[in-house]
Amino acid sequence: MELHSQPVMPEGFQCASVNCGLKEIGTDLSLFMSDVTCNAAAVFTKNQFPGAPVVVGREIIKQGKLRAIVVNSKVSNVGTGESGVANARKMGLAVAREFAIDPGQVLMSSTGVIAKPLPIEKIEAGIVGIGQQLSSDPLVGAQGIMTTDTYPKALSLSVGQATLTMVAKGSGMIEPNMATMLVYAFTDAAISSPALDTMLRKAVDTSFNMLSVDTDTSTSDTCVIMASGHKGPVDEAAFSKALDFACIEMTKKLARDGEGATKLLLAEAVNAYSRDEARAIAKSMVNSPLIKTMAYGADPNIGRVLMAVGKCFDCHVRPERVEVSINSTLVYKEQSRVDFDEERVRKLLSGDCVHITVNLNEGTDQALAYGCDLTNGYIEENAAYYSS
Amino acid sequence: MELHSQPVMPEGFQCASVNCGLKEIGTDLSLFMSDVTCNAAAVFTKNQFPGAPVVVGREIIKQGKLRAIVVNSKVSNVGTGESGVANARKMGLAVAREFAIDPGQVLMSSTGVIAKPLPIEKIEAGIVGIGQQLSSDPLVGAQGIMTTDTYPKALSLSVGQATLTMVAKGSGMIEPNMATMLVYAFTDAAISSPALDTMLRKAVDTSFNMLSVDTDTSTSDTCVIMASGHKGPVDEAAFSKALDFACIEMTKKLARDGEGATKLLLAEAVNAYSRDEARAIAKSMVNSPLIKTMAYGADPNIGRVLMAVGKCFDCHVRPERVEVSINSTLVYKEQSRVDFDEERVRKLLSGDCVHITVNLNEGTDQALAYGCDLTNGYIEENAAYYSS
Repeated sequence: MELHSQPVMPEGFQCASVNCGLKEIGTDLSLFMSDVTCNAAAVFTKNQFPGAPVVVGREIIKQGKLRAIVVNSKVSNVGTGESGVANARKMGLAVAREFAIDPGQVLMSSTGVIAKPLPIEKIEAGIVGIGQQLSSDPLVGAQGIMTTDTYPKALSLSVGQATLTMVAKGSGMIEPNMATMLVYAFTDAAISSPALDTMLRKAVDTSFNMLSVDTDTSTSDTCVIMASGHKGPVDEAAFSKALDFACIEMTKKLARDGEGATKLLLAEAVNAYSRDEARAIAKSMVNSPLIKTMAYGADPNIGRVLMAVGKCFDCHVRPERVEVSINSTLVYKEQSRVDFDEERVRKLLSGDCVHITVNLNEGTDQALAYGCDLTNGYIEENAAYYSS
Repeated sequence: MELHSQPVMPEGFQCASVNCGLKEIGTDLSLFMSDVTCNAAAVFTKNQFPGAPVVVGREIIKQGKLRAIVVNSKVSNVGTGESGVANARKMGLAVAREFAIDPGQVLMSSTGVIAKPLPIEKIEAGIVGIGQQLSSDPLVGAQGIMTTDTYPKALSLSVGQATLTMVAKGSGMIEPNMATMLVYAFTDAAISSPALDTMLRKAVDTSFNMLSVDTDTSTSDTCVIMASGHKGPVDEAAFSKALDFACIEMTKKLARDGEGATKLLLAEAVNAYSRDEARAIAKSMVNSPLIKTMAYGADPNIGRVLMAVGKCFDCHVRPERVEVSINSTLVYKEQSRVDFDEERVRKLLSGDCVHITVNLNEGTDQALAYGCDLTNGYIEENAAYYSS
């Protein structure tokens, strides 16, 4: 499967972004629009302090129909109680009014500082006339939803006649279930809402839900898919595969652009006792600050890997069976360090991807987790962050 | 309860530390000796890759009797298979030979790099004549067990006629259950081994087991107590209380000296649904990189606190009931930010302790977790660490 060299909105979709006065520089309000009502599905954060847009979004998606998505950055509308929910609804109403569409088909997201009131008047004013700015370049919409991301993220690929395009943001507070991650997928294929829902959940499970920048699960995470139907039906198995691929590619993009990240960290558990254990062990590795700093330092530190596996207290781990590979080089087996070409491995680790594989030799299940290294950049970004 | 201004070994105990050639500079081999056989108890790491000294230590402590503890730093003897276990035994045998004591009463620990063979010949040579160096200053023994610690850690307090002294090390790879944490407690009180075991487990549970520097559970963690009996029986309730106090004071010392730490982070959950949930929520906060960097940056970031509570998916958390205080100032209540004196709170957070309290209003259980801020120092220390 191959990504297009330039992402483009599928037929019938457009997007815009404007500055409505939330950020001093750059756009802070994005709109994604379809010219027809779309079948749609969405998944949201499991955090018990969901943002107001998540609360409202869960209601809206029940109908399985969407026409537009409106997103602001800078202020997240989380921890804002009932007035926050009212403001989220106002955001959707403003779009419905502007385009004379059903407010029940407008999904809204907000991302940024928590526990500050949403400046709803600025957002309402920003929505007026936003239709003038509509473009078929998904990077335009991706721009307005960025927070600490260093670049806008979008990708497209083909499924038969149809196009699948994905726009996302996400940088810190990311251990999806979901992440401070907003992901919007658009397609001109004709697919029912229940089918979209099934495919989305499956795709998210092995991609965004296996991503962790910093173990911190955001209160705003949202992943939505809209299908306009303009290109008619597609082979659903092929579409599902394309969606899996797109989600994994976007997951890697988000991981690589994690706050302060300089490289992608892949942590893989193979031949685990069960799927849950494979996921737990892969996550334990990808989340370990000592493994993350080892990736940054390009050091093949076997001890840290064993430690991260061993701290999965409830998993089947027998030291005598465990094998460890780093960037495809076997480094540990039969309770001993293997005599490997250390300089070669250090050189590989200095590249843009560190890939750790642990073979448990306990069963047949496997899992791959996506993350990034932990660097001074993360500290600087997050220690300097001023919540007021 | 009060700590002595100068720690001292209790009656009958002495310690020494020498350089046996593992480190280029400083001592790397410590011995803690009693002049009589002591009642003893110990708890060890739950990591599934326990170091060889932990494997052997678990056997030795079954008798509940100890005469000496020997510890080397620099190499941990973890991930070393059967030859590692043989080397751990040799360490104990060398001490038994040197002092003509029962090898079944010598506990050994090793701390440092993982998956490297223990240089047992150097250690054996270092043990010869170590008796010449014995001192009653616990800081002497504390010196030889340091790895990335910035200073040696010891404390003493009185329980009736008896003295309780604790020596420890621990800096990174610390989320006890236990930590890269070695803790040795000595007393001249007369207490049975089973009573010591009960008291030690109770004390560790609310102190070292609630400590996390970086969520990474070491493979070597060991906490031992030895009672020589020289001062006769003591009030056991009073001793237990003193042990709790000493463990908490030492936990704070270890947290403050976490790798790169500039301040103590206390995360407290009160009125939680259950004890387990209180512990899970307190741990979630103390482990959150976003809360740890917020502590470093002295920013009262309410959103990060709500996020860390909300990501305890399986706990009873109702946003409408949750209240948050930062260094005793109420900052969030009834789903809204409280109008508080932000400059005053920022000033408090700039001090050497950040204390976050979350009131769940769900029950009556509480827990306090101990940690530290996350700084550039942690990154530098761990990214530069060279495992070879």
